[in-house]
Amino acid sequence: MNKIYFRNDYSEIACPEIIENIAKYSQGHFVGYGEDEICESAREKIKKYLGDVNCDIHFLVGGTQANTVMIDAMLKPWEAVASVVSGHINVHEAGSIESTGHRIEPLPEHDGKMDPEELEKLCIVHEMEHMTDVRGVYISQATEVGTIYSKEELLKIREVCDKYGLYLFVDGARMGSGVIASGVTLREMAQIADCFYIGATKNGGMIGEAMVIVNDDLKPCYRRLMKQHGALLAKGFILGIQFDTLFTDDLFFRLARHENELALYLKEGMKKLGVRLLCDSVTNQQFPIFENSIIGKLSEKYQFEVWEPGDQETVIRFVCSWATKKEDVDQLLSDVRNLIK
Amino acid sequence: MNKIYFRNDYSEIACPEIIENIAKYSQGHFVGYGEDEICESAREKIKKYLGDVNCDIHFLVGGTQANTVMIDAMLKPWEAVASVVSGHINVHEAGSIESTGHRIEPLPEHDGKMDPEELEKLCIVHEMEHMTDVRGVYISQATEVGTIYSKEELLKIREVCDKYGLYLFVDGARMGSGVIASGVTLREMAQIADCFYIGATKNGGMIGEAMVIVNDDLKPCYRRLMKQHGALLAKGFILGIQFDTLFTDDLFFRLARHENELALYLKEGMKKLGVRLLCDSVTNQQFPIFENSIIGKLSEKYQFEVWEPGDQETVIRFVCSWATKKEDVDQLLSDVRNLIK
Amino acid sequence: MNKIYFRNDYSEIACPEIIENIAKYSQGHFVGYGEDEICESAREKIKKYLGDVNCDIHFLVGGTQANTVMIDAMLKPWEAVASVVSGHINVHEAGSIESTGHRIEPLPEHDGKMDPEELEKLCIVHEMEHMTDVRGVYISQATEVGTIYSKEELLKIREVCDKYGLYLFVDGARMGSGVIASGVTLREMAQIADCFYIGATKNGGMIGEAMVIVNDDLKPCYRRLMKQHGALLAKGFILGIQFDTLFTDDLFFRLARHENELALYLKEGMKKLGVRLLCDSVTNQQFPIFENSIIGKLSEKYQFEVWEPGDQETVIRFVCSWATKKEDVDQLLSDVRNLIK
Amino acid sequence: MNKIYFRNDYSEIACPEIIENIAKYSQGHFVGYGEDEICESAREKIKKYLGDVNCDIHFLVGGTQANTVMIDAMLKPWEAVASVVSGHINVHEAGSIESTGHRIEPLPEHDGKMDPEELEKLCIVHEMEHMTDVRGVYISQATEVGTIYSKEELLKIREVCDKYGLYLFVDGARMGSGVIASGVTLREMAQIADCFYIGATKNGGMIGEAMVIVNDDLKPCYRRLMKQHGALLAKGFILGIQFDTLFTDDLFFRLARHENELALYLKEGMKKLGVRLLCDSVTNQQFPIFENSIIGKLSEKYQFEVWEPGDQETVIRFVCSWATKKEDVDQLLSDVRNLIK
Repeated sequence: MNKIYFRNDYSEIACPEIIENIAKYSQGHFVGYGEDEICESAREKIKKYLGDVNCDIHFLVGGTQANTVMIDAMLKPWEAVASVVSGHINVHEAGSIESTGHRIEPLPEHDGKMDPEELEKLCIVHEMEHMTDVRGVYISQATEVGTIYSKEELLKIREVCDKYGLYLFVDGARMGSGVIASGVTLREMAQIADCFYIGATKNGGMIGEAMVIVNDDLKPCYRRLMKQHGALLAKGFILGIQFDTLFTDDLFFRLARHENELALYLKEGMKKLGVRLLCDSVTNQQFPIFENSIIGKLSEKYQFEVWEPGDQETVIRFVCSWATKKEDVDQLLSDVRNLIK
Repeated sequence: MNKIYFRNDYSEIACPEIIENIAKYSQGHFVGYGEDEICESAREKIKKYLGDVNCDIHFLVGGTQANTVMIDAMLKPWEAVASVVSGHINVHEAGSIESTGHRIEPLPEHDGKMDPEELEKLCIVHEMEHMTDVRGVYISQATEVGTIYSKEELLKIREVCDKYGLYLFVDGARMGSGVIASGVTLREMAQIADCFYIGATKNGGMIGEAMVIVNDDLKPCYRRLMKQHGALLAKGFILGIQFDTLFTDDLFFRLARHENELALYLKEGMKKLGVRLLCDSVTNQQFPIFENSIIGKLSEKYQFEVWEPGDQETVIRFVCSWATKKEDVDQLLSDVRNLIK
Repeated sequence: MNKIYFRNDYSEIACPEIIENIAKYSQGHFVGYGEDEICESAREKIKKYLGDVNCDIHFLVGGTQANTVMIDAMLKPWEAVASVVSGHINVHEAGSIESTGHRIEPLPEHDGKMDPEELEKLCIVHEMEHMTDVRGVYISQATEVGTIYSKEELLKIREVCDKYGLYLFVDGARMGSGVIASGVTLREMAQIADCFYIGATKNGGMIGEAMVIVNDDLKPCYRRLMKQHGALLAKGFILGIQFDTLFTDDLFFRLARHENELALYLKEGMKKLGVRLLCDSVTNQQFPIFENSIIGKLSEKYQFEVWEPGDQETVIRFVCSWATKKEDVDQLLSDVRNLIK
Repeated sequence: MNKIYFRNDYSEIACPEIIENIAKYSQGHFVGYGEDEICESAREKIKKYLGDVNCDIHFLVGGTQANTVMIDAMLKPWEAVASVVSGHINVHEAGSIESTGHRIEPLPEHDGKMDPEELEKLCIVHEMEHMTDVRGVYISQATEVGTIYSKEELLKIREVCDKYGLYLFVDGARMGSGVIASGVTLREMAQIADCFYIGATKNGGMIGEAMVIVNDDLKPCYRRLMKQHGALLAKGFILGIQFDTLFTDDLFFRLARHENELALYLKEGMKKLGVRLLCDSVTNQQFPIFENSIIGKLSEKYQFEVWEPGDQETVIRFVCSWATKKEDVDQLLSDVRNLIK
């Protein structure tokens, strides 16, 4: 019997519309390295969501790659990027940023988020010249624990960036989910951030992250840097197909809305059952806390990840993807009800 | 009107068998990061071609990435890799090897190939401790200009590697074509090289390069290094599908044979017409030389790359892929006959 | 009027014995790059203090350089070094370790020191392969705040290193002071650490740090790595003169003892006056805490550094060097008595 | 018996004036990291030779360090530096430039020098975006084989730099000798180059290279980068003493003139004896060619380096330093006369 899948949002190949387009284009020939007409079409469709900013858009394969290439582009050798301690680059990328020669200056996390005052304090302390020069800021929308920045929160960080001459980069591996939950549109993001990416891998696409570069300083030679990092895909048109499909008829946002809605339904259901949650996630990841005795039983029927093991209780993660079905959530809630009573 | 495509071997999405399998698996769920059952199946199928060596196999997305991660794994900070000046890493990867801190020590190229005596001389000169310590050797099968190493040539390079303690790494972006042309099997390659990869991107696959690591020294923590380089794909199963399909029923080699056969047919046809060629390529890339006046006319009907422009003559490149048709080559030869008479 | 100098222990050129030897050797000729007879003599003299371990000794110019070259030698690309958050490499070397591609994994500090249990926990957490592989451990003897590791404490850290296959590297910029205060001899250090250095810059020498490499794994090609980092001084014999002089007639330890004794005299004097101290430093740096109103007056007559400014109180640092005189400390204590009454 | 020393120009501690000043200042106290008054005085004295350019001056310890820090400051991650194949950074720095992530793009050497037309051609070829972006130019005055660039030659390279937006950096490890031989003054160098250094190590100083940064782009945060590379000496005042002494009463140039004069005397003497030379060096290094049978006899009495060993003949190097005496050259010439007759 196949278990019901809440493991993550990158467990399926892609949504049906993309599978169809892959087949549809399989007879064609395309020029390489993202200079084909499908990539161009995809860029134009994305730009319609970005308003009238003058930006460059590049398609990369994955999130770690996108983070590494962008931060490497932003920084001179003596410069560092600030991140909360729980930021993906600071924990789960096996030292990728440092491998490009740059230090991550850690800040405390508050439900996964950065505090602008703590960022400012960091900048002041680092005026001392035996320290790195903080030049970049890395945040994620949504965060690692499913929380989101409101527009007001983003603007406060932007203010510190302007005051100290910092670049603001937003990791958007789950940007779809983040946009739906926060109400901060891509257009607003393009006005606030210097650069950010829109993740397809976790939002119905087969692979691909669309990097949006707004700040002119960061645009020159970006493709050379991608090439150097092995991030300039020969068959760039495969990435183009992802975004061309997802940004047709709002598909990207429809999938994101589906993910969030089911996750919030799951969350409310858990709360009604008296299950506590690690934090108040408003996106497609939810982190309920169960007694250890229950974990084993749940795992007989469901696929999920253990987030924080403990002696008596364990935090686990349920993720809803574009492919998750409401009946699967209902089944889960029903089973949990039986297990905890 | 669509032009006839001889531009390169990565212009199509993938061969039909892969498109079908993508669709077939699109309803499934898979664990991430290459630890799924399709990747495992693909590894087993490849291993059947490798004989009884004890090797690790990892799937990466592209050639530059594969080269960079492997060479970074091989070398300590003060160590360098030897390559012929025309090696892909030395010319067309935008400084990727150097970006990981390592120097490429250049050797002369002989129809794209390395001379073992020149390699040995390099090792001797570099005993001087103000120079890098040469530790890795990078060659390509097939080379950038379509030539191949015979088994005897590979063994001579291996001999120097053994004498000076060097790792031998073979870039196999066009390994399929190389195996068919040289007769050096994957099994023999696994006995000679410390590590090499088998390229799918240019041999009918959608994306993907299968890195084969034979030498135990190079195996530990390879997945961590891939993660660090953004080369550990979340949806690793997409890469698994490529190789599982290609290594079923010899599909990989059938496609490679098709590529080579048409390219040799094209080459013989050109020679009969009196067209000279840059070198004696025996694989799927051919480099005819034309008077400049003809280039423009050819490009009205055909897609190809200019390899070496000159004042009077120009070297151009025709590449045959799994999708190239015999009638396209016939049409090309017919048109060339008319143009040059 | 010249102020009385408690600013640091690298404010004077060098102790008289070294100045004399510089003059004495100024008529000679020496081969370059540390292969001269004075360097050889210095190495032999140091080795007499190290017992019968089989070690390599290299002379480097400064502490940041010594830290960077050694940690770069220890680690493969995906590996990291553990350090307490207050470690010099983690704060005041402008990202030098990260510039070589390696991440520093931070641990809490306890009066400047590392807790072996926290180190072990870090190793366990980092078994997860999306994280760096912790391979090196960096500690300082004496620490940044003048505290020291006892032999027992060092052995407990060694135990964790042995269990998890870690290299233990000890920053010895103030090793002289550390040896005197802790009673852990160089011989014992050579039995416990894989590598460490003995700092001359802050212990009476003009410049120079002597890197002692005990672990055979870390010895090969070290000079090549030094050259690459610009750390292989052409006039290596100048460094040789430092250590040949300092390790004659126990001069190195006599100077260290002088530094410590005056600092402890200063500390006891402060305590008698009721002045609190930041921590219980037992070496040549002392960190008294004064009301802000007093700081300005003190600075009219004395050179010192502000360590931690506060709204009402400020921690300042007094450092005793080989050149500090007892009457200067007496004068200081007398002035403090008058200021605080 | 001590052999007569022609081995190199960094075999002595320092010229007498510096030894005296070291002793003179040995009672003083100085602030650290090059912010003391002697460093400031040294900078002012050097600036008098530079005319009215607005430049920053930093003191580093050695040549490899100076090259690495400057080139790292000049380049973004995807950018490369052009150098002739025989350039010191391309051969004898153990991969230092590559260790900072940057590729050296090699150009042919013509008696150690770069051809501006070849540089321009390189820039054009590298417009292809799968290659590095050439951004820096590295040349040496004097070169590795003792030749020099005339003002006209420098201006032609400058012209290419201006046309393609390149930074021109001049390695001045033997700048003193280069200024005397070429007639290109430091003032002119500061008008032509974006940055260059003035070497003391090989020109009578104990240690030290003075980096002159003219181009405003290269000035910000240079001290942070030095710190990161371990190149910001705690006892910066020791470097200050070198340059303050050497740039008093033209001492630097008097020593350089002495070196060159004796070397040219040696060269003319050799030529009169019929000894051929590798190239027409006009500075303090000379490269005579002898039959192998003579080399052994010469080495019984003289210290020198073998430059290029051959089957029958060998190129050896004689270097004159500030300490070389005319009678030593006379003795050498006399001995050669006897040996070759």
